Amino acid sequence: MPAKYAMRPIGFVRSPYRETGQIPKGCGAQHEAAGILEILPDYEQGLTDIEGFSHLFVLWVFDQAEGCELMTQPPTDTVPHGIFATRAPRRPNPLGLTVVQLLRRDGPRLHVQGVDMLDGTPILDLKPYLSSVAPEALRRGWLAESERRKGG
Amino acid sequence: MPAKYAMRPIGFVRSPYRETGQIPKGCGAQHEAAGILEILPDYEQGLTDIEGFSHLFVLWVFDQAEGCELMTQPPTDTVPHGIFATRAPRRPNPLGLTVVQLLRRDGPRLHVQGVDMLDGTPILDLKPYLSSVAPEALRRGWLAESERRKGG
Repeated sequence: MPAKYAMRPIGFVRSPYRETGQIPKGCGAQHEAAGILEILPDYEQGLTDIEGFSHLFVLWVFDQAEGCELMTQPPTDTVPHGIFATRAPRRPNPLGLTVVQLLRRDGPRLHVQGVDMLDGTPILDLKPYLSSVAPEALRRGWLAESERRKGG
Repeated sequence: MPAKYAMRPIGFVRSPYRETGQIPKGCGAQHEAAGILEILPDYEQGLTDIEGFSHLFVLWVFDQAEGCELMTQPPTDTVPHGIFATRAPRRPNPLGLTVVQLLRRDGPRLHVQGVDMLDGTPILDLKPYLSSVAPEALRRGWLAESERRKGG
């Protein structure tokens, strides 16, 4: 029987979004909203030197999502896809991943751009964004097909 | 008191690395190793359509790491940095994140390139890699400084 791993919040997202309907939907959505990553005092030392990075990975919990569905129909498409081929919330482990731009640090508060989480979302980890896959090397599967179908 | 979130493996990494000393070290290391993401039968349906994507995010557990240190000296530098400004394993939540290239899918087995995990590492989630930060927009903080100091 596989183990379970217990994760604890290291902080919480302050975001303009109070309900999911306010968040721009779908994999292709542009997320330009400003927000704050409020890190708990116990973990503030772990932010040392983070201000040198322009972009961060934020790992967080879909704490408002209930249950799990292995097939899901994203708002960007008219047919269902496997959950691991989407960013939909009702996942086997309700983990979210967002790339944000770090604007400035104010002690334990990271002012960022690009949040797509609800206000109050628990943060599990932060990591520096170090390198990108070259755009010409990227294939975007059903999402690209869906955009073509819509003439987008 | 913040909640705890229990995460369960959706599968395990098959990798050529049996011990951490074999893994190319540091944030700037090139990870070209081939490996397999073996997804458990219960979750195979969630892989539907994943083969359309060239690159995936793999969220995994540093299950061999013990404890946590908020300041850590990465192999790429001679001075310590905050844990959230590094990819070091002894994190408050032992979450790892790797971008891999998806070579092919064989049922529940995803053949990938770019693994930097130990053999047997538990996988928590997979997500499609959809877009990149433009290289000219990226600042890489202490890592860039460390490379300059070394003349690298």
